[in-house]
Amino acid sequence: MPLFTTKFQEKVGLPPGTLIHVGEKRPENCKITVIAYDENSFEEKEIKSIEESFPYRDRPGITWINIDGVHQTGIIEAVGAQFGIHSLVLEDIVNTTHRPKMEDLEDYLFVVLKMLYYAGNGNDITAEQVSLIIGPDFVISFQEKEGDTFDPIRKRIRNNSGRIRKKGADYLAYSLMDTIVDNYFVILEKIGEKIEEIEEEELLENPSRETVHVIHSLKREMIRLRRSVWPLREVTGVLERGESKLIHKSTRIYLRDIYDHTIQVIDTIENSRDMLSGLLDIYLSSMSNRMNNVMKVLTLIATIFMPLTFIAGIYGMNFANMPELQWRYGYPAVLIAMLVSGLSMVIYFKAKKWL
Amino acid sequence: MPLFTTKFQEKVGLPPGTLIHVGEKRPENCKITVIAYDENSFEEKEIKSIEESFPYRDRPGITWINIDGVHQTGIIEAVGAQFGIHSLVLEDIVNTTHRPKMEDLEDYLFVVLKMLYYAGNGNDITAEQVSLIIGPDFVISFQEKEGDTFDPIRKRIRNNSGRIRKKGADYLAYSLMDTIVDNYFVILEKIGEKIEEIEEEELLENPSRETVHVIHSLKREMIRLRRSVWPLREVTGVLERGESKLIHKSTRIYLRDIYDHTIQVIDTIENSRDMLSGLLDIYLSSMSNRMNNVMKVLTLIATIFMPLTFIAGIYGMNFANMPELQWRYGYPAVLIAMLVSGLSMVIYFKAKKWL
Amino acid sequence: MPLFTTKFQEKVGLPPGTLIHVGEKRPENCKITVIAYDENSFEEKEIKSIEESFPYRDRPGITWINIDGVHQTGIIEAVGAQFGIHSLVLEDIVNTTHRPKMEDLEDYLFVVLKMLYYAGNGNDITAEQVSLIIGPDFVISFQEKEGDTFDPIRKRIRNNSGRIRKKGADYLAYSLMDTIVDNYFVILEKIGEKIEEIEEEELLENPSRETVHVIHSLKREMIRLRRSVWPLREVTGVLERGESKLIHKSTRIYLRDIYDHTIQVIDTIENSRDMLSGLLDIYLSSMSNRMNNVMKVLTLIATIFMPLTFIAGIYGMNFANMPELQWRYGYPAVLIAMLVSGLSMVIYFKAKKWL
Amino acid sequence: MPLFTTKFQEKVGLPPGTLIHVGEKRPENCKITVIAYDENSFEEKEIKSIEESFPYRDRPGITWINIDGVHQTGIIEAVGAQFGIHSLVLEDIVNTTHRPKMEDLEDYLFVVLKMLYYAGNGNDITAEQVSLIIGPDFVISFQEKEGDTFDPIRKRIRNNSGRIRKKGADYLAYSLMDTIVDNYFVILEKIGEKIEEIEEEELLENPSRETVHVIHSLKREMIRLRRSVWPLREVTGVLERGESKLIHKSTRIYLRDIYDHTIQVIDTIENSRDMLSGLLDIYLSSMSNRMNNVMKVLTLIATIFMPLTFIAGIYGMNFANMPELQWRYGYPAVLIAMLVSGLSMVIYFKAKKWL
Amino acid sequence: MPLFTTKFQEKVGLPPGTLIHVGEKRPENCKITVIAYDENSFEEKEIKSIEESFPYRDRPGITWINIDGVHQTGIIEAVGAQFGIHSLVLEDIVNTTHRPKMEDLEDYLFVVLKMLYYAGNGNDITAEQVSLIIGPDFVISFQEKEGDTFDPIRKRIRNNSGRIRKKGADYLAYSLMDTIVDNYFVILEKIGEKIEEIEEEELLENPSRETVHVIHSLKREMIRLRRSVWPLREVTGVLERGESKLIHKSTRIYLRDIYDHTIQVIDTIENSRDMLSGLLDIYLSSMSNRMNNVMKVLTLIATIFMPLTFIAGIYGMNFANMPELQWRYGYPAVLIAMLVSGLSMVIYFKAKKWL
Repeated sequence: MPLFTTKFQEKVGLPPGTLIHVGEKRPENCKITVIAYDENSFEEKEIKSIEESFPYRDRPGITWINIDGVHQTGIIEAVGAQFGIHSLVLEDIVNTTHRPKMEDLEDYLFVVLKMLYYAGNGNDITAEQVSLIIGPDFVISFQEKEGDTFDPIRKRIRNNSGRIRKKGADYLAYSLMDTIVDNYFVILEKIGEKIEEIEEEELLENPSRETVHVIHSLKREMIRLRRSVWPLREVTGVLERGESKLIHKSTRIYLRDIYDHTIQVIDTIENSRDMLSGLLDIYLSSMSNRMNNVMKVLTLIATIFMPLTFIAGIYGMNFANMPELQWRYGYPAVLIAMLVSGLSMVIYFKAKKWL
Repeated sequence: MPLFTTKFQEKVGLPPGTLIHVGEKRPENCKITVIAYDENSFEEKEIKSIEESFPYRDRPGITWINIDGVHQTGIIEAVGAQFGIHSLVLEDIVNTTHRPKMEDLEDYLFVVLKMLYYAGNGNDITAEQVSLIIGPDFVISFQEKEGDTFDPIRKRIRNNSGRIRKKGADYLAYSLMDTIVDNYFVILEKIGEKIEEIEEEELLENPSRETVHVIHSLKREMIRLRRSVWPLREVTGVLERGESKLIHKSTRIYLRDIYDHTIQVIDTIENSRDMLSGLLDIYLSSMSNRMNNVMKVLTLIATIFMPLTFIAGIYGMNFANMPELQWRYGYPAVLIAMLVSGLSMVIYFKAKKWL
Repeated sequence: MPLFTTKFQEKVGLPPGTLIHVGEKRPENCKITVIAYDENSFEEKEIKSIEESFPYRDRPGITWINIDGVHQTGIIEAVGAQFGIHSLVLEDIVNTTHRPKMEDLEDYLFVVLKMLYYAGNGNDITAEQVSLIIGPDFVISFQEKEGDTFDPIRKRIRNNSGRIRKKGADYLAYSLMDTIVDNYFVILEKIGEKIEEIEEEELLENPSRETVHVIHSLKREMIRLRRSVWPLREVTGVLERGESKLIHKSTRIYLRDIYDHTIQVIDTIENSRDMLSGLLDIYLSSMSNRMNNVMKVLTLIATIFMPLTFIAGIYGMNFANMPELQWRYGYPAVLIAMLVSGLSMVIYFKAKKWL
Repeated sequence: MPLFTTKFQEKVGLPPGTLIHVGEKRPENCKITVIAYDENSFEEKEIKSIEESFPYRDRPGITWINIDGVHQTGIIEAVGAQFGIHSLVLEDIVNTTHRPKMEDLEDYLFVVLKMLYYAGNGNDITAEQVSLIIGPDFVISFQEKEGDTFDPIRKRIRNNSGRIRKKGADYLAYSLMDTIVDNYFVILEKIGEKIEEIEEEELLENPSRETVHVIHSLKREMIRLRRSVWPLREVTGVLERGESKLIHKSTRIYLRDIYDHTIQVIDTIENSRDMLSGLLDIYLSSMSNRMNNVMKVLTLIATIFMPLTFIAGIYGMNFANMPELQWRYGYPAVLIAMLVSGLSMVIYFKAKKWL
Repeated sequence: MPLFTTKFQEKVGLPPGTLIHVGEKRPENCKITVIAYDENSFEEKEIKSIEESFPYRDRPGITWINIDGVHQTGIIEAVGAQFGIHSLVLEDIVNTTHRPKMEDLEDYLFVVLKMLYYAGNGNDITAEQVSLIIGPDFVISFQEKEGDTFDPIRKRIRNNSGRIRKKGADYLAYSLMDTIVDNYFVILEKIGEKIEEIEEEELLENPSRETVHVIHSLKREMIRLRRSVWPLREVTGVLERGESKLIHKSTRIYLRDIYDHTIQVIDTIENSRDMLSGLLDIYLSSMSNRMNNVMKVLTLIATIFMPLTFIAGIYGMNFANMPELQWRYGYPAVLIAMLVSGLSMVIYFKAKKWL
């Protein structure tokens, strides 16, 4: 999710429900995997065309269709037609600039989430939109590209570990959402480390000029993060209150757990923002302090040498009648006077605590 | 919508419902077009006087009357009389300084929106008020001046593309509102680009003095934008909750879509404001940094040359008895002393990381 | 309404309902006018004592008693006794430091408003408290002093223009309130002009030192304005929701109109506050910028002339053995060296964009 | 109420309802006065021990027991036992660090208020906790020390002035609360005067360095004041809504009056805080302005005299071959050159508006 | 509770209810104590394995099991199995990074609190998570490590002092929570002292550079504190409203007391934050003031000595024809001119109040 949404110009005026992929264009094909399971059986298959998945639907047990890549709108349309998904929902799936949201369309729930991770160099947060269609006995998940985020869940289903095979589609959806939310803590941890790094650096005398840019970029990341997480509070809150009949009562306590985590993430984000503001204040006061120090040096030097140079200037004058110039000890006397003047300045500044 | 409302002085004390056009005065005539359609038929006509549109009303199907220009209050009054519009509503139509709002007058809904676009040089956001009267089988739209914003919708009606010919007046109204909201994203995109431009510039050593003015003018635009969009949240929220019998149940999901877009726009505006505040902080810290650098140069120069000039001053004194002056290597000795003094200053500043 | 309430010390501990005029003391007498009207008849009369107004009450039609001046507590008490007004309400009428409020006392509504205008030199906002007692067939309005604000309404009643003569006491009260709220827009317009003046001035290189005081005084006015308008939102909101049986259903849409205007005023106030904050930021960054420029000039001068003066100082020394002094082209060589040194400094600063 | 609560360490882990006086320790004895009255009779008595007050309870009419001093926990316990007061309420009475609050214990209401006044030198706001137990026919008021705040009410009861003798215990409680709230206005008035003093001073060129400390201490007072008044809004709001059967319907309008006053106090506090922030901004910009002026003087002096001194330095050089030195008008020519150089600098600075 | 949560990476993707201790790793064993009591009997025992506690459950009276240390997940699991605790609750007990929260699981209440104290050097606030399981006749409390915080309660149970032996498990839970909340006041007191220290220091001319770091670290502590206390408001609020059947009606007034204390703590935290912001403002203005003073000294020195040095320079020039040099009183005249020039500068600066 870019900070500023893009590619809208081409959408203005089009009829609603027109599927136009908004997001990074990708060359590779969508990858579709189907996992069908109940307490006793388990089947996993990668399929070429979405049609292959349809037979699974009529079998008892839970069907989880995972689609990596939403840029092939044909596939999305085929899914929509088969599962009776509203065209606006399909439009939202392919438009990857959405905020997290939850919509209850009675026959199924539609949930949009943001998966966040540090990609590539590990410095920039990358956001990927994950959409979930949650039906009574199926879950369809859409990711922007292939990834391994959901692998632990696949493994738990395969190995029949935990409760996942005993529970329904709502529990599967909860597990997927939980994985995404858990990832936020990893992000927060990394940001926390960066903030602590800055804090330590600031304690030194000379914070580098980069500090303010690092603070700014952390603030930027916070804005992004908050954007992905804030709306999640409502999403999980609504799910947890169990207003949809698709959510079993026993699953609510798990959703409550996600809700608590979301609150905790939001809380940490807000605190981090406070911390960053505080660090900027310290940075600025430290800049101001250094300026004070520079000015003190300048003032010190000027205050000591200006009077001295002036005295030297006096005795450099060429007046015919300057009796001091003929005095035997005129020169050493002036030198001593200069020394005294300089020293008294230094003492004065010591007293004022400038040195 | 100007930031500060204008032309109110002349309205003080007038009876309510007095039609006085508040806004930019325009010379051209109002342009009225009527589009009447149902699933099978379609008629489009530009008419001279509003009376010509009245026959359409009694025919089955949907009638869309679009009036470009609200400065001819006579036309507005005629419409009001024919369609039984409350005089306060008419007053709001011709007063183009209103905030977006929605009023349910039972027989019809009255919606005020702001259409925003970059006009002329493409630097200033121009706002135009669009008012919609939504009846059971008609929509009357009022624009401040002729424009092509609604052309895609006309085309969709003409070509019977999408669902628009199969649906009612509420769907037509939704399509008009959707077009307006989609335009906001185009604005946001442009502002986003400007913000990113500033960000990049700030990373350089020397942000130009203009930066702060650009930031300020972006803030101004944000205030304007927010003013147009914030109240829209309530408008679309109320419509979507479907409290009016004029909105069919099947249209609500579309209105929900506009509501989501509005939230997304508001969200982006708030984030942009945060970003702009951050950029101002960077700008100020960068100013402060440059001041520090300037001061360091000054202090450096003064600290090196003041002592040297003082030494030169000493040996420029004219005392009769200054033995050093007669020494053979007095002059080179002093030069070397000066060199050492200067160099040690430079080394000192290097150690303090001032160089 | 002063920013800080006054004259309370003398009220501490007094029984509630004690009428003590709090506000500017005025020498002139209260002026009482009675307007009685129905759709067909109209009578207007200035009366000396409040008792003269009592007969009007029993006649059919609407009676509007307007009292200019609330410092003669005897008159207020007489009105209270005749119309059965609660003593706390009377106390509120003569205490002109109140915030706008609405109280439903079942037999009548009591509304306190603030009328704002630019008085005298046109620079300071003056606030005057207007209290309305709205009964089933009468309205009593109290102003702090004689004014012409309500003249347009008197004229409309006299000329039977608009709906006013056909409607009840609630519509009359609405008209009075509407006039007061319309005046706020005039104030906002003037403040808007002042803000735009500052904005233009700030774009110049040298904003005057007064700017910050103008910004502060505008902020002060904003605080005052907000204080008068914020509570009005609740007042008009409650009236509009029609919880009192004294407000006819058909009047509600008019009150809704006032409510909308109030929201618009509040909105503009908040935006203006944002603008003023932004202007202060620009002012401070501009101050900082000028400081930078001053410092650059100083550094420039010092950096060019300090080394030069030092060189001159060297050759002003009086050592016996300074071979350069005897060189034929020593003097021009030094002059050229100085020129080169000075020019290279200038070039250096040009390269650093300081010139 | 100190800003930071004290003496809690000794309370940690004690059973609830343990009476430990928290607050300033006082040597003098508690003073107990009983006033018993109904419409026709009146009795006032200072008593030594609380037991003397018990007979009054069984008589018809209203009994008001006022206890000055809550440090003798034995007396509080005796009252509690006689009137059946919950031990947590007694604990709250002797712990004088509480926020204002209201508790409905069905048989009686418990109200905690803060009485504020300028004590001693008139510069520091002193806060005293006043607790009220409001029963069906009695009011017990606890003050921290003897004071004359309630004297006007005693006088009104004695003289049977106003309604107080005709009304119940709730009206008596209202009168006590009203007196306390009225005192807040006296405080606000004084703070208002101080703010206006600062404002005037700031308009001068040279705000003293103390200004920022005065602003800070006013902010501190605001925090204190707000702390005492904010919770009062809820207290009076709840009382006014009349949810307790101990409050007669006819008393509610008086409580509504206190509620309005509380809102007005809060409003003024918030506005004052805004004003103080604005004044700090002015102060800082004024500091910055003075710095600019100081720097201008320095730059001016340096820019004028550095080149001049350099020229003088040139002709102070001792080269054998300096033809200008032998010119007849060399000296006056150089003097004139210096004058021109200096004057042109001055003119340049005049043009740049630095002078 | 660290500001930034840690150790989450290893939890991502694990099934919910997996017990992984998140927090400081501790070597020592968990310590388990059981206290069983009713009004007449009392038994206290330290046990080795949790199984020893199970018999107590079936006896009448209240059982309080206190477990110091949650890093041995086996013990927690055993407790969970015996008391039928939901696995998500167990997970929350061992994950010590939680915000305070309350969950009503019908058969028992689960409350998470943060115990705060100054550990070790007394400068850093240490937070420890305390979890309570409140059943109909038992309370299980989990602490992160052994501590003496609950000793006063143990003593009150042992000695049968206060009401504790007469009341139920809810009262015991209340007592534990009350002890924790009382500790917050001790923290606030210490922070209050530190703030007052800074305030006094700031009043001096030369606040040390450390001030800003102390302010920052206090702000940090405030963020932590707020994080622990804010959610507590909801926790105690929900408990006090008595929505759970596990809370007896007579206990509610005690919970109301905790709620009041929580509000008071939050209030003090918010005020302290305000104070700290104010202190930072003072610090910055004080920095700025010192800079002004430094600059004044520099300007003073430069303004006095630059013209003097220039004059000396003039009479150091070597022109053949400088008549003043031959004047008898040329030298003293120049000295006097210099004195006058210097003095007039001093007088000028005195007039401008720079000295």
